[in-house]
This record gives sequence, C-alpha cells and structure tokens, in this order.
Amino acid sequence: MADTSCAIPDFSRPDGLITAVAQDATTGKVLMVAHMNRGAWEETLSTGRAVYYSRSRGRLWRKGEESGNVQRIRSIRVDCDGDAVLLLVDQVGGAACHEGYASCFFREATPDGLEIIAERIFDPDKVYGKQRQ
Amino acid sequence: MADTSCAIPDFSRPDGLITAVAQDATTGKVLMVAHMNRGAWEETLSTGRAVYYSRSRGRLWRKGEESGNVQRIRSIRVDCDGDAVLLLVDQVGGAACHEGYASCFFREATPDGLEIIAERIFDPDKVYGKQRQ
Repeated sequence: MADTSCAIPDFSRPDGLITAVAQDATTGKVLMVAHMNRGAWEETLSTGRAVYYSRSRGRLWRKGEESGNVQRIRSIRVDCDGDAVLLLVDQVGGAACHEGYASCFFREATPDGLEIIAERIFDPDKVYGKQRQ
Repeated sequence: MADTSCAIPDFSRPDGLITAVAQDATTGKVLMVAHMNRGAWEETLSTGRAVYYSRSRGRLWRKGEESGNVQRIRSIRVDCDGDAVLLLVDQVGGAACHEGYASCFFREATPDGLEIIAERIFDPDKVYGKQRQ
C-alpha cells in the first residue's frame, strides 16, 4: 500500500530538521539519535549511506567521514507524524559512537547515577587522532 | 562504574527538551520518538512510566493517558551527548502509535513512496472516540 499523498518526511519545523534514529538491522540495538535536514535526507536516499545534519557544526555530517564507520542503509521507516525517521543500518566497524562504543546509549541511568554498561570497540584517540582534542 | 560528575541528561538547549526514543524491551522494536523536559524526565524516573513533553500541546504527556497503553520502564539509557535518552519499555496493549500500530514507524520509504508494512493492533476511532476527530 503506497502513500504518496503528502510530502513526507515533514521538514516544516522552524529549524527544518527531523529526528533520525539509527538501529542496527542485525542486532536490533539502537545506535544513535541525530538529525536530518532535507539535504541529508536526499543524500541518504541517493547514496544508501546515512547522512545527518550536525547542529553543532552547522553542516551535513556524512556518518563515518572521519572514523570510516559508515552506516549502510538497509531500510528506512517514517513515523506517523512524518517528523522522525528510523534507519535500519549495517554499522561498519561495529561501533556508531564517537566514544568508541557500539551504541551512543552505553550508559544506564541508575539510582546511583549513570553506569557504563558496554565495552569499548575502539579507542577514540586512535581513530580520531588530534582532531577531536 | 558510576558517572555522577555532570548533570545528565542535558536540558540546556533553548527549548529545554531532550529527545526520547522508546524501544520495546522484549521485541527490540523501536516504538516511537518523543521529547522530554526536565519535569517529564523526573516524573518518568519517579513513577516508572514513560512521561513525555508534548510540543504540540505544550504540556506533559503521560503516555497512555487516553488510550491506556502506558509504557512501563524497564531500563533507561543516556547517550554520549546527554541530549537523548533511550527507554526500554513494556508496551501495555502492544501498540504505541495513536494510529493503532505497534510502532509509529509503520511505514517504509520505498522508491514508490511510503508503504505500510505493519498490521493495526487497534482501531483508533474506538480507542480515542470523538476526542481525536
């Protein structure tokens, strides 16, 4: 059942962004949350690799452009309101987070504070070198 | 390993909101994306049920307050930047989406447009009645 009746996703918010969630297509692990503007969305569709819009850098962020840990798109889902998308991806290198973890959600909220519940896949200092210091 | 060194999550963005992703703790399905302000976060922690901040309604949104389909918290993860949280939940009623689907991400982006790839769990008109018309 195809629904082409309206412009989806919806980039009409003042900042022109939608929320993008990346989920590992194999493990089901939620890897990260980021944003897309229309350019990021269109480049993601045309290249089959996840492209986000970095709010802090104010430009397109081709995931893996520094680390090599690109995300290959397996499927894209759009939510009911059209302002969030879910990317099912193959995560090259096994780690999505710039901190070296498989997922950016590597900390659990506990009554005693945040507890790290994952093992590092890579050493950020080796992958990003001095660029991130 | 507990990390209590900084105020996490980070509600310092101009709108005071963070992004919240709800994932079914059993199936791994990503259910929905919403937002939280500090009040929603604190009520979620204290009650063990997902509470969001509705940007459209401008108030706390106790998930399931109309439908009864509340989300019971199993675990909460915080991302590397502190501006997104992942809620692992038990979804009462089996459906998170106000459209009656298990997940709000019930449509896949295809070259021919959006394709509905899930079955409705409930009829929204019966659950919400005239309130949503």
